[in-house]
Amino acid sequence: MKTPTGYRYSGIHSGLRTNEPGRLDLAMLVSDRPANAAGVFTQNRVCAAPVHLCRERLPRNDARGVVICSGNANACTGEQGMADARRMAALSAESLGFKPEQFLVASTGVIGRMLPMGIMEAGIPKAAKALSADATALRDAATAIMTTDTRIKTFGEDVDGLYTMSGFAKGAAMIGPNMATMLGFLFTDANVDPKDLQSILRDAVQDTFNCISVEGHTSTNDTVLIFANGTGGVLKGPPLNRFSIAVQRACSTLSRAIAEDAEGANHLVKIDVVGCRSDAEARVIAKTVAESALVKTAIYGADPNWGRIVSAAGYSGVEFDEKELSLTLGHFTLYKNGTPLEFDPKEVSKFMSETREIEMKLKFQRGEGRCTFYTCDLTTEYVRLNADYTT
Amino acid sequence: MKTPTGYRYSGIHSGLRTNEPGRLDLAMLVSDRPANAAGVFTQNRVCAAPVHLCRERLPRNDARGVVICSGNANACTGEQGMADARRMAALSAESLGFKPEQFLVASTGVIGRMLPMGIMEAGIPKAAKALSADATALRDAATAIMTTDTRIKTFGEDVDGLYTMSGFAKGAAMIGPNMATMLGFLFTDANVDPKDLQSILRDAVQDTFNCISVEGHTSTNDTVLIFANGTGGVLKGPPLNRFSIAVQRACSTLSRAIAEDAEGANHLVKIDVVGCRSDAEARVIAKTVAESALVKTAIYGADPNWGRIVSAAGYSGVEFDEKELSLTLGHFTLYKNGTPLEFDPKEVSKFMSETREIEMKLKFQRGEGRCTFYTCDLTTEYVRLNADYTT
Repeated sequence: MKTPTGYRYSGIHSGLRTNEPGRLDLAMLVSDRPANAAGVFTQNRVCAAPVHLCRERLPRNDARGVVICSGNANACTGEQGMADARRMAALSAESLGFKPEQFLVASTGVIGRMLPMGIMEAGIPKAAKALSADATALRDAATAIMTTDTRIKTFGEDVDGLYTMSGFAKGAAMIGPNMATMLGFLFTDANVDPKDLQSILRDAVQDTFNCISVEGHTSTNDTVLIFANGTGGVLKGPPLNRFSIAVQRACSTLSRAIAEDAEGANHLVKIDVVGCRSDAEARVIAKTVAESALVKTAIYGADPNWGRIVSAAGYSGVEFDEKELSLTLGHFTLYKNGTPLEFDPKEVSKFMSETREIEMKLKFQRGEGRCTFYTCDLTTEYVRLNADYTT
Repeated sequence: MKTPTGYRYSGIHSGLRTNEPGRLDLAMLVSDRPANAAGVFTQNRVCAAPVHLCRERLPRNDARGVVICSGNANACTGEQGMADARRMAALSAESLGFKPEQFLVASTGVIGRMLPMGIMEAGIPKAAKALSADATALRDAATAIMTTDTRIKTFGEDVDGLYTMSGFAKGAAMIGPNMATMLGFLFTDANVDPKDLQSILRDAVQDTFNCISVEGHTSTNDTVLIFANGTGGVLKGPPLNRFSIAVQRACSTLSRAIAEDAEGANHLVKIDVVGCRSDAEARVIAKTVAESALVKTAIYGADPNWGRIVSAAGYSGVEFDEKELSLTLGHFTLYKNGTPLEFDPKEVSKFMSETREIEMKLKFQRGEGRCTFYTCDLTTEYVRLNADYTT
């Protein structure tokens, strides 16, 4: 995996998860020089202390890094939680000789429990000491942020020989007992103005991380940060467009990796909605279908009960006439302009059970608006995994 | 059960469900004199042919009855579906000597399959012949409209010795493979103007049938009809208020019976949201919590992971500050004004597993708006039941 110059990483065991000796649970990403940085966060009104802290501090032009813990979300923790998040940043900055406000914080795990600060006081200097530019250290960082993820999610590519765009993320998708909390960290050696970084990241997240859904439960902790520590000229004009595409690709790869890493799920489901009045309208329909428990259980059971898909579109809140709607599942057209077509249920069921990635397309005749959304099926395993998480 | 004068009922086996010999699947409710009638229907843009037909015909002052089939929803069936629904009404009216437009139609079952009209042509005259004012006939009608319901749902009470308010309904709630299609039929011997009936029914449904949720999948077929065939003076003024309360009580009893009849579910969940700026705001929050898969799996697992409840409120779209929110589960206060309280997880878990009806209260400090919402837990049994329905 390609990585940009001027970054170091670490992932260590601090002991936040008392039941899991040795498990990596504290990560650090540090820029060797002050970096431009921006962030995009959860839209939940109840948001974690680290999210409040990052919002206060971003965008900025002198960021030095982020410290991330997994196992405790530091959400719904009141004033004490805010003080604890600030302390995590201060401890990290102190260990490395930076100012506290140059450091950012992210957390993921159980909500409503106070952070055991003794463990953080001991762990953070250890994480600072472990920092390295090695691939192994990056791997440790990507591992330490995982909750119920089964594998690390990383991305790195060279862009036109000019700079490198890299990142890592976590998200347990289907089984997300942390409410599928998603954390993503991008880092590049391009030089991009913080304001440009902010708007480019916001747009990229909208089309990628915001187009995957598990059960529609928006986390209190969702965070995507980007660091750009380039020393060359600031990117402007067409090179900035190229940069936007690189950010989009990084976000797209990492978000799809989250949807794919759905332990409880048997199928990845791609939902294409086309022919709407606007992209926003297509997105509302796609999200409603993606979040229907009846659609998701039908996919789990390889049951071609397509009425569930069409009717989910119907209650999305978008006003349309059913005569302008057609539905395709894989290569089977099941519904055309408001009328059901004949099909062999056994054949469609066989296709559904044998296909790991199921594609469905809802086609309207209203305009050019479109959206691609990813979700997964709803399985008995999902219910089992989520029925017993904290206790 | 109390029933008003001037109504007859039937429930017969027509053969719509080819796999289930003898099962009652066709019901009729008939008024012996022209009745005022009104209806409230699904808000799904994709709605069944019988819903289109009832919308055309209501409110009116000369309704004579409704014919209801279960096993086929007659939804997503295009022009042919509309013709079939009209034919069902016409066949019923013909059998009884009424005009076709005096008859209404409702259906529930699988979406996207054409109605086998041969079976309807034979069944409807048979249902008309079976009509009777006996309690057994009413029981048969309430049975014939069931899909995955485990028991019939009926209501009947005398109102101030002046008239009787009765009704029956179906809805399989949690296991609702028909998208929890809800059908409800109220009938009374009060005399109420059709316009008043319409607005009273709309208000009652809003607070009752629209305050239960299984998985948030709005059916294509949801229908509540009310018939008022009274021959005395038209109710106006205070007596009309009494009538409104009686309708509300009938709807409340029947809707709660639906939430309780959740085969796949182990718990009924009552969600009280209080202290909001408006009832509408409280309703949005209650519905979001009720439809969170993570809240529902936690209840199934008796897991006091209350952060899931608070964070569901947080993504409801209502803007609030977490410092104005407190949460009570049963008699345990878990979160107060934005700060978590200490509790014994084992004790709360024991309470959750031993209590059939779990109450939670989300209390805000914004005003007097409130809402009570019912849902149930999300179980592995729900997923199993819904993974394989049509095939």
